[in-house]
Amino acid sequence: MSDSPLLLSIAVLGGTGKEGKGLAYRWAKAGYHIHIGSRDPEKAKAAATEVSEMLGGEAMIEGLGNADAARAANIVVLTVPYSAHKDTLESVKSELKGKILVDVSVPLMPPKVATVQMPGAGSAAQEAKQIVGEGVEVCAAFQNISHELLLDNAEVECDVLVTGTSKEARGEVLKLVEAAGLRGWDAGPLENSVVLEGLTSVLIGINRKYGSTNAGIKITGVSS
Amino acid sequence: MSDSPLLLSIAVLGGTGKEGKGLAYRWAKAGYHIHIGSRDPEKAKAAATEVSEMLGGEAMIEGLGNADAARAANIVVLTVPYSAHKDTLESVKSELKGKILVDVSVPLMPPKVATVQMPGAGSAAQEAKQIVGEGVEVCAAFQNISHELLLDNAEVECDVLVTGTSKEARGEVLKLVEAAGLRGWDAGPLENSVVLEGLTSVLIGINRKYGSTNAGIKITGVSS
Repeated sequence: MSDSPLLLSIAVLGGTGKEGKGLAYRWAKAGYHIHIGSRDPEKAKAAATEVSEMLGGEAMIEGLGNADAARAANIVVLTVPYSAHKDTLESVKSELKGKILVDVSVPLMPPKVATVQMPGAGSAAQEAKQIVGEGVEVCAAFQNISHELLLDNAEVECDVLVTGTSKEARGEVLKLVEAAGLRGWDAGPLENSVVLEGLTSVLIGINRKYGSTNAGIKITGVSS
Repeated sequence: MSDSPLLLSIAVLGGTGKEGKGLAYRWAKAGYHIHIGSRDPEKAKAAATEVSEMLGGEAMIEGLGNADAARAANIVVLTVPYSAHKDTLESVKSELKGKILVDVSVPLMPPKVATVQMPGAGSAAQEAKQIVGEGVEVCAAFQNISHELLLDNAEVECDVLVTGTSKEARGEVLKLVEAAGLRGWDAGPLENSVVLEGLTSVLIGINRKYGSTNAGIKITGVSS
Protein backbone atom coordinates (compact mmCIF):
# COMPACT_ATOMS: atom_id res chain seq x y z
CA MET A 1 0.00 0.00 0.00
CA SER A 2 1.38 3.35 -0.97
CA ASP A 3 1.94 6.31 1.29
CA SER A 4 0.60 8.64 -1.37
CA PRO A 5 -3.03 9.61 -0.89
CA LEU A 6 -3.39 9.98 -4.66
CA LEU A 7 -2.79 6.28 -5.17
CA LEU A 8 -5.00 5.12 -2.34
CA SER A 9 -8.72 4.80 -2.77
CA ILE A 10 -11.28 4.57 -0.02
CA ALA A 11 -14.76 3.09 -0.10
CA VAL A 12 -17.22 4.60 2.34
CA LEU A 13 -20.08 2.10 2.68
CA GLY A 14 -23.22 3.77 3.98
CA GLY A 15 -21.66 6.95 2.65
CA THR A 16 -25.08 8.46 2.02
CA GLY A 17 -25.53 8.80 5.80
CA LYS A 18 -24.30 11.84 7.69
CA GLU A 19 -21.21 10.29 9.29
CA GLY A 20 -20.10 8.61 6.07
CA LYS A 21 -20.65 11.73 4.03
CA GLY A 22 -18.61 13.77 6.50
CA LEU A 23 -15.68 11.37 6.30
CA ALA A 24 -15.95 11.13 2.49
CA TYR A 25 -15.87 14.94 2.33
CA ARG A 26 -12.75 15.23 4.47
CA TRP A 27 -10.86 12.51 2.57
CA ALA A 28 -11.92 13.74 -0.88
CA LYS A 29 -10.70 17.18 0.16
CA ALA A 30 -7.35 15.63 1.14
CA GLY A 31 -6.98 14.16 -2.37
CA TYR A 32 -8.04 10.56 -1.86
CA HIS A 33 -10.13 8.82 -4.51
CA ILE A 34 -13.48 8.10 -2.85
CA HIS A 35 -16.07 5.47 -3.72
CA ILE A 36 -19.29 6.15 -1.86
CA GLY A 37 -21.25 2.94 -1.42
CA SER A 38 -24.94 2.40 -0.73
CA ARG A 39 -27.46 -0.40 -1.17
CA ASP A 40 -29.01 1.95 -3.73
CA PRO A 41 -26.38 3.07 -6.30
CA GLU A 42 -28.55 6.06 -7.29
CA LYS A 43 -28.46 7.39 -3.74
CA ALA A 44 -24.70 6.83 -3.69
CA LYS A 45 -24.33 8.83 -6.90
CA ALA A 46 -26.42 11.68 -5.46
CA ALA A 47 -24.27 11.76 -2.32
CA ALA A 48 -21.09 11.75 -4.44
CA THR A 49 -22.41 14.67 -6.48
CA GLU A 50 -23.29 16.55 -3.30
CA VAL A 51 -19.81 16.10 -1.80
CA SER A 52 -18.16 16.91 -5.12
CA GLU A 53 -20.10 20.19 -5.36
CA MET A 54 -19.07 21.11 -1.80
CA LEU A 55 -15.49 20.83 -3.09
CA GLY A 56 -16.11 22.90 -6.25
CA GLY A 57 -16.21 19.85 -8.51
CA GLU A 58 -12.52 19.13 -7.92
CA ALA A 59 -12.88 15.88 -5.98
CA MET A 60 -12.30 12.32 -7.19
CA ILE A 61 -15.52 10.83 -5.91
CA GLU A 62 -18.14 8.49 -7.34
CA GLY A 63 -21.22 6.63 -6.14
CA LEU A 64 -21.69 2.86 -6.48
CA GLY A 65 -23.44 -0.10 -4.95
CA ASN A 66 -21.74 -1.27 -1.73
CA ALA A 67 -20.03 -4.31 -3.30
CA ASP A 68 -18.77 -2.33 -6.31
CA ALA A 69 -17.46 0.40 -4.01
CA ALA A 70 -15.65 -2.17 -1.85
CA ARG A 71 -14.17 -3.84 -4.94
CA ALA A 72 -12.80 -0.54 -6.24
CA ALA A 73 -11.02 0.49 -3.03
CA ASN A 74 -7.91 -0.37 -1.00
CA ILE A 75 -9.50 0.57 2.30
CA VAL A 76 -13.18 -0.01 3.05
CA VAL A 77 -14.89 2.09 5.72
CA LEU A 78 -18.19 0.87 7.13
CA THR A 79 -20.53 3.62 8.34
CA VAL A 80 -23.95 1.93 8.16
CA PRO A 81 -26.32 1.91 11.16
CA TYR A 82 -25.76 -1.09 13.41
CA SER A 83 -29.09 -2.60 12.28
CA ALA A 84 -27.53 -3.01 8.80
CA HIS A 85 -24.07 -4.06 10.06
CA LYS A 86 -24.26 -7.81 9.56
CA ASP A 87 -26.13 -7.77 6.23
CA THR A 88 -23.83 -5.17 4.70
CA LEU A 89 -20.72 -7.11 5.75
CA GLU A 90 -22.13 -10.35 4.32
CA SER A 91 -22.85 -8.57 1.02
CA VAL A 92 -19.30 -7.22 0.59
CA LYS A 93 -17.07 -9.72 2.34
CA SER A 94 -15.91 -11.41 -0.88
CA GLU A 95 -14.46 -8.01 -1.93
CA LEU A 96 -12.40 -7.49 1.23
CA LYS A 97 -9.56 -10.04 0.99
CA GLY A 98 -6.17 -8.41 1.41
CA LYS A 99 -7.76 -5.09 2.36
CA ILE A 100 -8.35 -3.09 5.51
CA LEU A 101 -11.91 -2.80 6.81
CA VAL A 102 -12.48 0.18 9.10
CA ASP A 103 -15.59 -0.33 11.21
CA VAL A 104 -17.17 2.92 12.45
CA SER A 105 -20.24 1.12 13.82
CA VAL A 106 -21.58 1.46 17.32
CA PRO A 107 -23.93 -1.26 18.58
CA LEU A 108 -26.54 1.11 20.00
CA MET A 109 -29.65 -0.74 21.13
CA PRO A 110 -32.61 1.67 21.30
CA PRO A 111 -34.19 2.84 23.48
CA LYS A 112 -31.28 2.63 25.93
CA VAL A 113 -28.66 4.24 23.71
CA ALA A 114 -26.82 5.76 26.69
CA THR A 115 -26.20 2.29 28.14
CA VAL A 116 -23.32 0.15 26.83
CA GLN A 117 -24.77 -3.05 25.33
CA MET A 118 -22.23 -5.06 23.35
CA PRO A 119 -22.98 -8.03 21.07
CA GLY A 120 -21.77 -11.50 22.01
CA ALA A 121 -18.56 -11.08 20.01
CA GLY A 122 -17.51 -8.33 22.43
CA SER A 123 -17.99 -5.34 20.13
CA ALA A 124 -19.34 -4.52 16.67
CA ALA A 125 -15.80 -4.54 15.27
CA GLN A 126 -15.05 -7.99 16.71
CA GLU A 127 -18.35 -9.18 15.22
CA ALA A 128 -17.22 -7.76 11.86
CA LYS A 129 -13.96 -9.70 12.13
CA GLN A 130 -15.93 -12.92 12.73
CA ILE A 131 -18.02 -12.25 9.62
CA VAL A 132 -15.24 -11.27 7.20
CA GLY A 133 -12.84 -13.99 8.37
CA GLU A 134 -9.14 -14.46 7.65
CA GLY A 135 -7.26 -12.35 5.15
CA VAL A 136 -8.93 -9.08 6.13
CA GLU A 137 -7.42 -6.61 8.58
CA VAL A 138 -10.18 -5.09 10.67
CA CYS A 139 -9.84 -1.76 12.48
CA ALA A 140 -12.30 0.29 14.52
CA ALA A 141 -12.23 4.09 14.60
CA PHE A 142 -14.19 7.36 14.24
CA GLN A 143 -17.10 6.28 16.47
CA ASN A 144 -17.16 9.48 18.48
CA ILE A 145 -16.75 12.17 15.85
CA SER A 146 -19.67 14.48 15.11
CA HIS A 147 -20.69 14.50 11.44
CA GLU A 148 -21.72 18.17 11.71
CA LEU A 149 -18.18 19.09 12.64
CA LEU A 150 -16.73 17.07 9.75
CA LEU A 151 -18.94 18.77 7.16
CA ASP A 152 -18.50 22.24 8.68
CA ASN A 153 -14.73 22.23 8.27
CA ALA A 154 -14.79 22.92 12.01
CA GLU A 155 -11.86 22.00 14.19
CA VAL A 156 -12.91 18.76 15.84
CA GLU A 157 -12.16 18.80 19.53
CA CYS A 158 -12.29 15.01 19.80
CA ASP A 159 -9.43 12.59 19.35
CA VAL A 160 -9.79 9.37 17.37
CA LEU A 161 -8.77 6.12 19.04
CA VAL A 162 -7.80 3.44 16.52
CA THR A 163 -7.85 -0.26 17.36
CA GLY A 164 -7.19 -3.07 14.93
CA THR A 165 -5.94 -6.53 14.16
CA SER A 166 -2.37 -5.40 13.39
CA LYS A 167 -0.08 -2.50 14.14
CA GLU A 168 0.43 -1.98 10.39
CA ALA A 169 -3.30 -1.72 9.71
CA ARG A 170 -3.69 0.72 12.64
CA GLY A 171 -0.86 2.75 11.15
CA GLU A 172 -2.67 3.01 7.80
CA VAL A 173 -5.87 4.10 9.52
CA LEU A 174 -3.95 6.67 11.58
CA LYS A 175 -2.88 8.22 8.26
CA LEU A 176 -6.56 8.53 7.31
CA VAL A 177 -7.29 10.15 10.68
CA GLU A 178 -4.63 12.75 10.02
CA ALA A 179 -5.84 13.28 6.44
CA ALA A 180 -9.28 14.05 7.85
CA GLY A 181 -7.74 16.78 10.00
CA LEU A 182 -8.10 14.84 13.23
CA ARG A 183 -5.77 13.70 16.02
CA GLY A 184 -5.41 9.92 16.22
CA TRP A 185 -3.97 7.44 18.71
CA ASP A 186 -2.98 3.79 18.37
CA ALA A 187 -5.35 2.28 20.94
CA GLY A 188 -4.17 -1.31 20.58
CA PRO A 189 -5.72 -4.61 19.50
CA LEU A 190 -9.26 -5.08 18.20
CA GLU A 191 -10.37 -6.37 21.63
CA ASN A 192 -10.05 -2.76 22.81
CA SER A 193 -12.76 -1.57 20.43
CA VAL A 194 -15.33 -2.14 23.20
CA VAL A 195 -13.91 1.02 24.79
CA LEU A 196 -14.32 3.14 21.63
CA GLU A 197 -17.80 1.86 20.87
CA GLY A 198 -18.90 2.02 24.50
CA LEU A 199 -17.62 5.59 24.84
CA THR A 200 -20.31 6.61 22.37
CA SER A 201 -23.02 5.64 24.87
CA VAL A 202 -21.15 7.44 27.66
CA LEU A 203 -20.89 10.59 25.52
CA ILE A 204 -24.59 10.41 24.52
CA GLY A 205 -25.40 10.28 28.24
CA ILE A 206 -23.10 13.23 28.97
CA ASN A 207 -24.73 15.26 26.18
CA ARG A 208 -28.15 14.57 27.75
CA LYS A 209 -27.10 15.33 31.31
CA TYR A 210 -24.94 18.38 30.68
CA GLY A 211 -26.95 19.93 27.80
CA SER A 212 -24.17 19.60 25.23
CA THR A 213 -24.37 18.26 21.69
CA ASN A 214 -20.79 17.39 20.79
CA ALA A 215 -19.17 15.83 23.86
CA GLY A 216 -15.91 14.12 22.91
CA ILE A 217 -12.63 13.02 24.47
CA LYS A 218 -9.03 14.07 24.28
CA ILE A 219 -6.00 12.09 25.36
CA THR A 220 -3.94 14.06 27.89
CA GLY A 221 -0.54 13.65 29.49
CA VAL A 222 1.32 12.66 26.31
CA SER A 223 3.73 15.21 24.89
CA SER A 224 4.02 14.39 21.21
CA MET B 1 -26.26 11.01 53.91
CA SER B 2 -25.02 14.48 54.74
CA ASP B 3 -23.50 16.99 52.37
CA SER B 4 -20.89 17.90 54.95
CA PRO B 5 -17.54 16.25 54.46
CA LEU B 6 -16.96 16.40 58.21
CA LEU B 7 -19.86 14.06 58.87
CA LEU B 8 -19.04 11.65 56.07
CA SER B 9 -16.47 8.97 56.57
CA ILE B 10 -14.76 7.00 53.85
CA ALA B 11 -13.15 3.57 54.02
CA VAL B 12 -10.33 2.98 51.56
CA LEU B 13 -9.87 -0.80 51.34
CA GLY B 14 -6.45 -1.67 50.01
CA GLY B 15 -5.47 1.77 51.21
CA THR B 16 -1.90 0.64 51.82
CA GLY B 17 -1.41 0.48 48.03
CA LYS B 18 -0.35 3.47 46.03
CA GLU B 19 -3.69 4.32 44.44
CA GLY B 20 -5.59 3.93 47.71
CA LYS B 21 -3.06 5.97 49.65
CA GLY B 22 -3.28 8.75 47.07
CA LEU B 23 -7.06 8.92 47.33
CA ALA B 24 -6.95 8.69 51.15
CA TYR B 25 -4.47 11.60 51.17
CA ARG B 26 -6.64 13.81 48.98
CA TRP B 27 -9.82 13.10 50.97
CA ALA B 28 -8.17 13.44 54.39
CA LYS B 29 -6.81 16.78 53.21
CA ALA B 30 -10.37 17.81 52.24
CA GLY B 31 -11.55 17.08 55.79
CA TYR B 32 -13.16 13.67 55.45
CA HIS B 33 -12.72 11.08 58.18
CA ILE B 34 -10.72 8.26 56.59
CA HIS B 35 -10.53 4.60 57.57
CA ILE B 36 -7.70 2.91 55.72
CA GLY B 37 -8.37 -0.81 55.42
CA SER B 38 -5.99 -3.68 54.79
CA ARG B 39 -5.98 -7.44 55.36
CA ASP B 40 -3.21 -6.63 57.86
CA PRO B 41 -4.39 -3.95 60.36
CA GLU B 42 -0.77 -3.14 61.27
CA LYS B 43 0.00 -2.21 57.66
CA ALA B 44 -3.18 -0.13 57.58
CA LYS B 45 -2.06 1.74 60.73
CA ALA B 46 1.35 2.41 59.20
CA ALA B 47 -0.24 3.79 56.03
CA ALA B 48 -2.59 5.96 58.11
CA THR B 49 0.37 7.35 60.06
CA GLU B 50 2.23 8.05 56.82
CA VAL B 51 -0.68 9.97 55.31
CA SER B 52 -1.33 11.80 58.57
CA GLU B 53 2.30 12.94 58.71
CA MET B 54 2.08 14.20 55.12
CA LEU B 55 -0.76 16.41 56.36
CA GLY B 56 1.12 17.65 59.44
CA GLY B 57 -0.78 15.38 61.82
CA GLU B 58 -4.02 17.30 61.22
CA ALA B 59 -5.95 14.56 59.42
CA MET B 60 -8.72 12.34 60.77
CA ILE B 61 -7.33 9.05 59.59
CA GLU B 62 -6.90 5.61 61.11
CA GLY B 63 -5.87 2.13 59.99
CA LEU B 64 -8.01 -0.97 60.48
CA GLY B 65 -8.70 -4.41 59.06
CA ASN B 66 -10.81 -4.26 55.89
CA ALA B 67 -14.08 -5.35 57.55
CA ASP B 68 -13.64 -2.93 60.48
CA ALA B 69 -12.85 -0.09 58.07
CA ALA B 70 -15.94 -0.89 55.98
CA ARG B 71 -18.11 -1.02 59.11
CA ALA B 72 -16.91 2.38 60.27
CA ALA B 73 -17.61 4.23 57.01
CA ASN B 74 -20.55 5.57 54.99
CA ILE B 75 -18.78 5.11 51.68
CA VAL B 76 -16.43 2.20 50.97
CA VAL B 77 -13.81 2.56 48.26
CA LEU B 78 -12.19 -0.61 46.93
CA THR B 79 -8.62 -0.16 45.64
CA VAL B 80 -7.19 -3.68 45.92
CA PRO B 81 -5.48 -5.38 42.95
CA TYR B 82 -7.92 -7.33 40.81
CA SER B 83 -6.42 -10.62 42.04
CA ALA B 84 -7.80 -9.78 45.52
CA HIS B 85 -11.10 -8.31 44.26
CA LYS B 86 -13.46 -11.22 44.89
CA ASP B 87 -11.99 -12.30 48.23
CA THR B 88 -11.95 -8.78 49.63
CA LEU B 89 -15.56 -8.20 48.61
CA GLU B 90 -16.64 -11.50 50.19
CA SER B 91 -14.86 -10.54 53.41
CA VAL B 92 -16.61 -7.16 53.76
CA LYS B 93 -19.98 -7.60 52.08
CA SER B 94 -21.90 -7.98 55.33
CA GLU B 95 -20.72 -4.46 56.27
CA LEU B 96 -21.96 -2.79 53.06
CA LYS B 97 -25.76 -2.81 53.34
CA GLY B 98 -27.24 0.66 52.82
CA LYS B 99 -23.85 2.05 51.79
CA ILE B 100 -22.13 3.03 48.57
CA LEU B 101 -19.31 0.84 47.31
CA VAL B 102 -16.93 2.60 44.91
CA ASP B 103 -14.98 0.09 42.86
CA VAL B 104 -11.65 1.42 41.54
CA SER B 105 -10.58 -2.02 40.27
CA VAL B 106 -9.40 -2.78 36.77
CA PRO B 107 -9.47 -6.41 35.64
CA LEU B 108 -5.96 -6.44 34.18
CA MET B 109 -4.88 -9.93 33.15
CA PRO B 110 -1.06 -10.10 32.93
CA PRO B 111 0.85 -10.34 30.74
CA LYS B 112 -1.51 -8.64 28.25
CA VAL B 113 -2.37 -5.64 30.38
CA ALA B 114 -2.76 -3.38 27.33
CA THR B 115 -5.55 -5.61 26.00
CA VAL B 116 -9.10 -5.26 27.34
CA GLN B 117 -10.12 -8.54 28.98
CA MET B 118 -13.32 -8.30 30.99
CA PRO B 119 -14.71 -10.92 33.38
CA GLY B 120 -17.94 -12.75 32.56
CA ALA B 121 -20.03 -10.23 34.50
CA GLY B 122 -19.02 -7.57 31.95
CA SER B 123 -16.65 -5.58 34.17
CA ALA B 124 -15.04 -5.73 37.60
CA ALA B 125 -17.68 -3.34 38.96
CA GLN B 126 -20.55 -5.47 37.64
CA GLU B 127 -18.86 -8.50 39.20
CA ALA B 128 -18.70 -6.57 42.49
CA LYS B 129 -22.44 -5.86 42.27
CA GLN B 130 -23.12 -9.58 41.80
CA ILE B 131 -21.05 -10.36 44.91
CA VAL B 132 -22.44 -7.71 47.26
CA GLY B 133 -26.07 -8.17 46.13
CA GLU B 134 -29.13 -6.05 46.84
CA GLY B 135 -29.10 -3.13 49.25
CA VAL B 136 -25.68 -1.84 48.18
CA GLU B 137 -25.22 0.92 45.62
CA VAL B 138 -22.16 0.15 43.50
CA CYS B 139 -20.25 2.80 41.58
CA ALA B 140 -17.08 2.62 39.49
CA ALA B 141 -14.61 5.50 39.28
CA PHE B 142 -10.96 6.65 39.55
CA GLN B 143 -9.54 3.82 37.38
CA ASN B 144 -7.39 6.10 35.26
CA ILE B 145 -5.87 8.47 37.79
CA SER B 146 -2.16 8.29 38.47
CA HIS B 147 -1.30 7.74 42.14
CA GLU B 148 1.88 9.79 41.75
CA LEU B 149 -0.15 12.81 40.76
CA LEU B 150 -2.52 12.36 43.70
CA LEU B 151 0.30 12.26 46.25
CA ASP B 152 2.24 15.06 44.58
CA ASN B 153 -0.57 17.59 44.97
CA ALA B 154 -0.15 17.93 41.21
CA GLU B 155 -2.97 19.13 39.03
CA VAL B 156 -4.37 15.95 37.52
CA GLU B 157 -4.96 16.35 33.81
CA CYS B 158 -7.38 13.42 33.69
CA ASP B 159 -11.12 13.54 34.17
CA VAL B 160 -12.95 10.97 36.28
CA LEU B 161 -15.90 9.16 34.72
CA VAL B 162 -18.36 7.88 37.33
CA THR B 163 -20.80 5.06 36.61
CA GLY B 164 -23.11 3.48 39.12
CA THR B 165 -26.36 1.76 40.01
CA SER B 166 -28.26 5.01 40.69
CA LYS B 167 -28.04 8.67 39.81
CA GLU B 168 -28.03 9.53 43.52
CA ALA B 169 -25.06 7.27 44.24
CA ARG B 170 -23.19 8.72 41.25
CA GLY B 171 -23.93 12.18 42.62
CA GLU B 172 -22.36 11.27 45.99
CA VAL B 173 -19.27 9.91 44.27
CA LEU B 174 -19.02 13.02 42.09
CA LYS B 175 -18.74 15.01 45.35
CA LEU B 176 -15.77 12.84 46.33
CA VAL B 177 -14.21 13.44 42.91
CA GLU B 178 -14.46 17.17 43.43
CA ALA B 179 -13.16 16.90 47.00
CA ALA B 180 -10.07 15.14 45.61
CA GLY B 181 -9.44 18.13 43.35
CA LEU B 182 -10.51 16.33 40.19
CA ARG B 183 -13.07 16.93 37.44
CA GLY B 184 -15.84 14.32 37.34
CA TRP B 185 -18.61 13.36 34.94
CA ASP B 186 -21.76 11.29 35.39
CA ALA B 187 -21.03 8.49 32.91
CA GLY B 188 -24.29 6.62 33.39
CA PRO B 189 -25.31 3.16 34.60
CA LEU B 190 -22.97 0.52 35.97
CA GLU B 191 -23.04 -1.32 32.60
CA ASN B 192 -20.90 1.55 31.28
CA SER B 193 -18.05 0.72 33.67
CA VAL B 194 -16.55 -1.52 30.95
CA VAL B 195 -15.53 1.73 29.23
CA LEU B 196 -13.79 3.15 32.32
CA GLU B 197 -12.01 -0.10 33.16
CA GLY B 198 -11.12 -0.84 29.54
CA LEU B 199 -9.73 2.67 29.06
CA THR B 200 -7.01 1.73 31.53
CA SER B 201 -5.65 -0.88 29.10
CA VAL B 202 -5.90 1.60 26.23
CA LEU B 203 -3.97 4.21 28.25
CA ILE B 204 -1.32 1.65 29.30
CA GLY B 205 -0.84 0.88 25.60
CA ILE B 206 -0.61 4.57 24.73
CA ASN B 207 2.00 5.12 27.47
CA ARG B 208 4.06 2.28 25.97
CA LYS B 209 3.73 3.41 22.37
CA TYR B 210 4.16 7.15 22.87
CA GLY B 211 6.72 7.07 25.70
CA SER B 212 4.46 8.76 28.24
CA THR B 213 3.77 7.76 31.84
CA ASN B 214 0.55 9.52 32.72
CA ALA B 215 -1.74 9.33 29.69
CA GLY B 216 -5.29 10.25 30.65
CA ILE B 217 -8.51 11.54 29.09
CA LYS B 218 -10.51 14.73 29.21
CA ILE B 219 -14.09 15.22 28.15
CA THR B 220 -14.36 17.97 25.52
CA GLY B 221 -17.21 19.87 23.90
CA VAL B 222 -19.19 20.48 27.08
CA SER B 223 -19.30 24.03 28.36
CA SER B 224 -20.03 23.80 32.06
